[in-house]
Amino acid sequence: MSILSNATAYPVSDVNRVKRLHERGSYDRETVHAILDAAALCHIAYVVDGLPYCTPTLFWREGDRLYWHGSSASRMLRRQSEGEPVCVTVSHLDSLVLARSAFNHSVDYRSVMAFGHARVIDDPDEKARALAAMVGRFYPGRWATLRPATQQEIKAARVIGMDIEQASAKVRAKGIADDEEDYGLPIWAERIPVRTVLGPPEPCPRLVPGVERPETLGGYREGRALGDALREAHAATFPGSNPAKAFKPSV
Amino acid sequence: MSILSNATAYPVSDVNRVKRLHERGSYDRETVHAILDAAALCHIAYVVDGLPYCTPTLFWREGDRLYWHGSSASRMLRRQSEGEPVCVTVSHLDSLVLARSAFNHSVDYRSVMAFGHARVIDDPDEKARALAAMVGRFYPGRWATLRPATQQEIKAARVIGMDIEQASAKVRAKGIADDEEDYGLPIWAERIPVRTVLGPPEPCPRLVPGVERPETLGGYREGRALGDALREAHAATFPGSNPAKAFKPSV
Repeated sequence: MSILSNATAYPVSDVNRVKRLHERGSYDRETVHAILDAAALCHIAYVVDGLPYCTPTLFWREGDRLYWHGSSASRMLRRQSEGEPVCVTVSHLDSLVLARSAFNHSVDYRSVMAFGHARVIDDPDEKARALAAMVGRFYPGRWATLRPATQQEIKAARVIGMDIEQASAKVRAKGIADDEEDYGLPIWAERIPVRTVLGPPEPCPRLVPGVERPETLGGYREGRALGDALREAHAATFPGSNPAKAFKPSV
Repeated sequence: MSILSNATAYPVSDVNRVKRLHERGSYDRETVHAILDAAALCHIAYVVDGLPYCTPTLFWREGDRLYWHGSSASRMLRRQSEGEPVCVTVSHLDSLVLARSAFNHSVDYRSVMAFGHARVIDDPDEKARALAAMVGRFYPGRWATLRPATQQEIKAARVIGMDIEQASAKVRAKGIADDEEDYGLPIWAERIPVRTVLGPPEPCPRLVPGVERPETLGGYREGRALGDALREAHAATFPGSNPAKAFKPSV
């Protein structure tokens, strides 16, 4: 196992090295972080009694640490409190690719696998700060406008942190790539973009009269790509932590 | 561990019982299948040398069996050939929910965790049939129109099957749910629908002149929900295997 590390890339070992189609692989922090920050949901793999589990959950990133949370009674979170190894995966589907042969059918996508050890955040101050950061990661400035969290609510939540020890990104963004000799065949081929977008925000029907939509939610507008809104919110709440690198929109 | 099973539901045990917010949980096949069939990507958790891995990949369902495929050289697939336990998870994000307190912020979602043991499909006929089904699952009727697969291509592919031994669905679809006493507070609350949609299909620039888009791709049209197109395609290729139950669109 060789470990390569520098200031801008995650170390590479047999655990995170992209083995198949390695030209799609990358280990640099900017690429990894851009894919993570465009997502609300991750999928977390963990092992209980030797069996694999994969649980989808909301998460957020601060620097090289990922956080997620849930109920103190959660089986997943109880199992993740004592330094257990986890793999946190995020993926975005960007298009369907219809080629001239079955084997060149594909999809364009961006994905990250991040490896580390989960630990519970039990220091009360760090936990409260993390919960505020979670709201801020989605909705900058919103935490301070909310009904304050009660001690009971904070106690009922469990926050897990994982320092990214190794990570890899895998990206396919090339659309149709047929065998050269197949381009002459009379077969239809196309790329169908796939995009995850916001619908029109639906105000709560029970709003107190006169309450206006905060300007800070302006990034969440109908038709916008969810990933763009999420990355903008992340950058606003964690300035300096967000990569400048942007993926070209798929649609 | 108690096992409950009947014709319409998956058996329930400690492995797949929904423990947290169990009112969101379900084990019936219709619900599980509808969530699976609306997805192109799943996330597969598996264990290698005691460590968890979570890999996103394309998949499809036939009855109670899930399939996925990849290269014969894939680490993940080599590890999944001998009956190893896996957990296949699918999730759909349907909305962001902004409540009046931090702890009632949430998302609407549909997810499935399916448990079983992976095995390689090495019978040549079954493998060829599975690869045709994979194309058909996305694009009904397309397999027969393609440049035929070569023996080398079929050999280079590895197909994995997993009979669903246990599964659970978890669905949140209730939008804003504040504490009753919080509705009177002058705080903005809203639900923001999230939808994964198709962009305008982009024909290959190198199409042979005169080749027309097949009518069978009519379900893949701009603005349509990816999940609706996928479920329709699944039902066309596997009639009788697709549940009639539909989720109301989130947008």
